[in-house]
Amino acid sequence: MKLSSIEEFFSHAHQLYLPAVSIDNVIFGFHENQLKVLLLQLVNKSVWALPGGFVGKSEHIDEAAARILKERTGLNDIFLQQFYTFGQPERSNNKILVKALQMLNQEFDKDHWVLQRFVTVGYYALVEYANVNPHPDEVSLACAWHDLDKLPELLMDHAEIIKKALDEMRLKLSVQPIGYNLLPKEFTMKNLQSIYETILGRKLDRANFNRKMLSSGILDRKEKHYSGGAHKAPYLYSFNRKKYFKALSSGLGRGF
Amino acid sequence: MKLSSIEEFFSHAHQLYLPAVSIDNVIFGFHENQLKVLLLQLVNKSVWALPGGFVGKSEHIDEAAARILKERTGLNDIFLQQFYTFGQPERSNNKILVKALQMLNQEFDKDHWVLQRFVTVGYYALVEYANVNPHPDEVSLACAWHDLDKLPELLMDHAEIIKKALDEMRLKLSVQPIGYNLLPKEFTMKNLQSIYETILGRKLDRANFNRKMLSSGILDRKEKHYSGGAHKAPYLYSFNRKKYFKALSSGLGRGF
Repeated sequence: MKLSSIEEFFSHAHQLYLPAVSIDNVIFGFHENQLKVLLLQLVNKSVWALPGGFVGKSEHIDEAAARILKERTGLNDIFLQQFYTFGQPERSNNKILVKALQMLNQEFDKDHWVLQRFVTVGYYALVEYANVNPHPDEVSLACAWHDLDKLPELLMDHAEIIKKALDEMRLKLSVQPIGYNLLPKEFTMKNLQSIYETILGRKLDRANFNRKMLSSGILDRKEKHYSGGAHKAPYLYSFNRKKYFKALSSGLGRGF
Repeated sequence: MKLSSIEEFFSHAHQLYLPAVSIDNVIFGFHENQLKVLLLQLVNKSVWALPGGFVGKSEHIDEAAARILKERTGLNDIFLQQFYTFGQPERSNNKILVKALQMLNQEFDKDHWVLQRFVTVGYYALVEYANVNPHPDEVSLACAWHDLDKLPELLMDHAEIIKKALDEMRLKLSVQPIGYNLLPKEFTMKNLQSIYETILGRKLDRANFNRKMLSSGILDRKEKHYSGGAHKAPYLYSFNRKKYFKALSSGLGRGF
């Protein structure tokens, strides 16, 4: 985003975007058994924010979430899931935002469109962060992964939004599959278990995990090829794409 | 709602309510192994709608959902859960709504505030419908329970909203407890299993259900009192209120 388009944004936002509705994306990054979250650094350096934005007047909110993520971080083709909508009235009263906007634009008006009350729709995604290369837009100083247990000062209610995204991801872990964007095409059961353990923050029983995963039907097992010393090599699996995405809406068929 | 306040609504809505954001409540009614949904009949008789409405400019969206439910159906103190936000741009292009609004108000303007694009936040609740007494507001002809497999013509995307609420309730059934508003203070395991079976639309294995419910910790078992011929009476349970509501946010601790 060039400076001219920032100025354009400030003068035309009310014509281009829906009032009162915004989007915030929580991008969790997984790498070597670590879970991080992607944040943008505001012009007032000590404060960071989720990559968020506004909904075009004729745009689907799902499409807005994907466009905003791309515009603000460069990340493309990420599978985003809506998880919750945040609508406490006081969430938009924010001095940090006013300060950041003033630093971007001297002529900035305190009653500006962007300072109205917004109800924000939260989306989350989980990516292997070695596979993606995020970069900040022109209104941000940096775009970086942060440890979930060492978050910097965050804009508005963004800390609460991240916590809720994590809670929701954990809650859905036993009914919705996870891992599609995180693993290579073929992986071991141990690889998959590591992801679940990292997200849940605790160890799982191996036999139990295997049994549940196999009964879910979302995995295809590769035949072992006899190759001399490889008798003890673990089985390799791949996701059954069709069953995986079906299970996202209908559940894993376990539980009851 | 008196007619004067309907007119007041049409002339003051833009001052009282947030633009672009609405609420729709999906109230599922459970009774004798039947699951129904509560709908309001519009003035154009053949069409029904979910009890929905708008968010006050300084009102939390959760509070708006409860207020709207009370104003439109008389139902009070219902535990509502947000489940999804619907934001396809074409959902607000609706001739049925225009017609209904014209039938309520001859001077109605086709560019009126209520016909703007709304992103709607969906809430659901599950109630024992023998325990509640819904009644329509003054803009609706009736307020009645409908079978989920025999829904009448519905306003806008309300059929999709109901389907999504049911999917979400089923998906969360194995990670979140259910039944709090549906059962008397003390109930048998069979009573509870009936609720799960009705919502899922299929039979469950009794031993498996018992085991999972008992291990979840949300149930307190009553001691049996010896009383002559009652040897074979089943155990009675009650919900452990604290653990029940904790499990709503953190999960039932089963699954993984």
